[in-house]
Amino acid sequence: MRRLIALAGAFILAAAPLRAQTIEDQVTTFQLENGMDVVVIEDHRAPAVVHMLWYRAGSADEQPGVSGVAHFLEHLLFKGTEKLEPGEFSEIVKANGGTDNAFTSYDYTGYFQRIATDRLGLMMEMEADRMKNIQLDREDILTERDVIIEERNQRVENDPAALFREQTMAAQYLNHPYGTPIIGWRHEMVNLDLDDALAYYQQFYSPNNAVLVVAGDVMPDEVLALAQQHYGPIPRNEALPERARPAEPPQMAERRLSFSDPRVAQPYVMRSYLAPERDPGDQRTAAALTLLAEVLGGSQTSVLPQKLQFDEKRAVYAGAFYSGLSLDDTTFGVVNVPVPGVTLEEAEADMDRVIADFIETGVDPVQLDRIKFQLRASQVYELDSSNSLARRYGAALTSGLTVEDVHAWPGILQSITPEEIIAAAQAVFDRDNAVTGFLRTAEEVTQ
Amino acid sequence: MRRLIALAGAFILAAAPLRAQTIEDQVTTFQLENGMDVVVIEDHRAPAVVHMLWYRAGSADEQPGVSGVAHFLEHLLFKGTEKLEPGEFSEIVKANGGTDNAFTSYDYTGYFQRIATDRLGLMMEMEADRMKNIQLDREDILTERDVIIEERNQRVENDPAALFREQTMAAQYLNHPYGTPIIGWRHEMVNLDLDDALAYYQQFYSPNNAVLVVAGDVMPDEVLALAQQHYGPIPRNEALPERARPAEPPQMAERRLSFSDPRVAQPYVMRSYLAPERDPGDQRTAAALTLLAEVLGGSQTSVLPQKLQFDEKRAVYAGAFYSGLSLDDTTFGVVNVPVPGVTLEEAEADMDRVIADFIETGVDPVQLDRIKFQLRASQVYELDSSNSLARRYGAALTSGLTVEDVHAWPGILQSITPEEIIAAAQAVFDRDNAVTGFLRTAEEVTQ
Repeated sequence: MRRLIALAGAFILAAAPLRAQTIEDQVTTFQLENGMDVVVIEDHRAPAVVHMLWYRAGSADEQPGVSGVAHFLEHLLFKGTEKLEPGEFSEIVKANGGTDNAFTSYDYTGYFQRIATDRLGLMMEMEADRMKNIQLDREDILTERDVIIEERNQRVENDPAALFREQTMAAQYLNHPYGTPIIGWRHEMVNLDLDDALAYYQQFYSPNNAVLVVAGDVMPDEVLALAQQHYGPIPRNEALPERARPAEPPQMAERRLSFSDPRVAQPYVMRSYLAPERDPGDQRTAAALTLLAEVLGGSQTSVLPQKLQFDEKRAVYAGAFYSGLSLDDTTFGVVNVPVPGVTLEEAEADMDRVIADFIETGVDPVQLDRIKFQLRASQVYELDSSNSLARRYGAALTSGLTVEDVHAWPGILQSITPEEIIAAAQAVFDRDNAVTGFLRTAEEVTQ
Repeated sequence: MRRLIALAGAFILAAAPLRAQTIEDQVTTFQLENGMDVVVIEDHRAPAVVHMLWYRAGSADEQPGVSGVAHFLEHLLFKGTEKLEPGEFSEIVKANGGTDNAFTSYDYTGYFQRIATDRLGLMMEMEADRMKNIQLDREDILTERDVIIEERNQRVENDPAALFREQTMAAQYLNHPYGTPIIGWRHEMVNLDLDDALAYYQQFYSPNNAVLVVAGDVMPDEVLALAQQHYGPIPRNEALPERARPAEPPQMAERRLSFSDPRVAQPYVMRSYLAPERDPGDQRTAAALTLLAEVLGGSQTSVLPQKLQFDEKRAVYAGAFYSGLSLDDTTFGVVNVPVPGVTLEEAEADMDRVIADFIETGVDPVQLDRIKFQLRASQVYELDSSNSLARRYGAALTSGLTVEDVHAWPGILQSITPEEIIAAAQAVFDRDNAVTGFLRTAEEVTQ
């Protein structure tokens, strides 16, 4: 396995300098007069294009009491408009040899199609149409509400680990809406109605709240002309509110919770800490945390698995996770899945001991070099996919970052020192900001 | 002490039947054409009157991100109107021999004056004036914001037990705004501005969202005439939203937290369970929980103190608390303050053991009779105070109950059986719905 990575690395290294020089040149940005941002990523290797429309609105922008409405609306955008019958949007994409889909997160909602380049104008025409002209009736609402509730059943209710994560996130955030699941609380989803969906739509779906990302075999001027033609006539929403969510108060006491479910086959302990995110012009702390997660638990050669899985054989899996791409404070997580015979209390102590030793010992410079190399490699791999590139820019621009931040990020990651990683660890591993959760197999009920 | 209570009891018992017959006759209700509810409580023993104006709006009705604005606005209502200079309201009350104040809770905000009966019209004139005509400038805002921040400093920041309760409540509620402190999160209070206060004022301060309670030496017709004269001309707010807050999702995992502060002199363990509240026409469960709190920990003769303080001498204080007066789900709490040498873990186990034994053993009927007697006595005592009576009706009517519910409550309490109390205990003591908190003296920081 190691050998394979090394070989792949050699190949990438040869290619990397060339690509690293060109990515910034491949990207062109515009803003339409109605406030819509446009990002064009040229990639002329195949006569295809990815057309993505991102809204700066996700589940964390919902009003209280209507959780899930952002994702619900995402589904409803595949119903009809004045021009299109329900379902016709995707049928046209398919009939033109393309694929399409959509996604909702805390901070954004996105719609995309991958299609032959000469159909880009058609995609824009249809996407611009459904930005303002959706036509919904009660029947659509009832049908699609059943669909999202079934989606929740499959993704959450039937998965004790997902339920556990929901309860953990709710305990992590005392005030900020990241404590509410993206898909919604079930008891609120069942009451979502047409008015809720339209209120969200009218508030957030407008050109001055959107980022258009087009990646593929296109020239920037052509994309701009098409965008002006199709999106340009849509008026800006003058009533678009400033984007600000309730912030966390000081967290002063670690929360601990134990979630038991008979369906749990493999118990584990997970700890989640409130953590800073990537901020525009200020990404070093997030970069240090990104490397910290890799050093501690990003792969099987990281500190936690090396110690707990291989040296001590007390864990079947141990890891760390962090994603700095977030509008507001995010989380840094560590997890330890003990071998049979090791209790969750012991597993927690193991994890804490290894982390404390790590902070004491410092970062292994050889390991850090390898991780930086791998990060660079994976970033280079991403350049091979128009879809990944488009998502990189779309997600960043709807999470409060700029194109400049996206371009600076790889270099910042490479420049992070071992001392910065340890300082970031010392700052983030504050138990007052943490939730520690045990996922257990259901046992006898205690009083 | 016991002897004293028994003597007092004998006195009350003699008086009780008479008063119990009359309280319903003392109460008259009206509704003005603009939707304002009026409750008149006749009490002719002294030529004084309590004039209270309650709004069906408290901190739990705030928008996210502006916590504390309900209480902030309560302060601002003592600034000027078109007719009155800042501070003049209270000066006039004082000049007329009266006292005045106000209060804010999760579910209501209230303003009151106690004054000679012949000044009731003047009070209404001034109170009606500030329902719609407050005049605020930036200077008022800045000054009064400092005042509420200082109030928070004194009540919360300087009191580790208060900080601990805030963190516990935030962990108790995953979705409902009762997780936000009434006084507000400090980081949001410092940003409260004129627009926030006026938005809340315009949304909630209107006659169709208010309950006027007048208790004292007055005749209902006189009060109605005065109310029509002063409050009647104020138009209803047609845009008043339906009163509905985000509800809790299923709570699936007990939260535990440990709060450490060097200022803590006396560590303790507290557990809070999500619990049903008094609902209109449906108060039996809340009545059973009210009695459960009394049986377990309402006084020094209750189960928890008897066992832990007196029999075993392992606690310096043990108690239980519950208030069913709440618009949405409330909490049931138990607390144990161990003697030195008993750890908080042991204190928690003690508490749980005593409660488990209690559920096993059942309610002591002699104890229950004594508690019912004491409840009746305290309710009768309340009749002696116009102020207490006015608050009873005002709080109930702004917490979703009716006058009929208020009148039924004492009888329901008396009719609760030991079996209902045990059933309520078995239902409410569900650890998935609980937060268990340790309040500790600060120790060495653990990783």
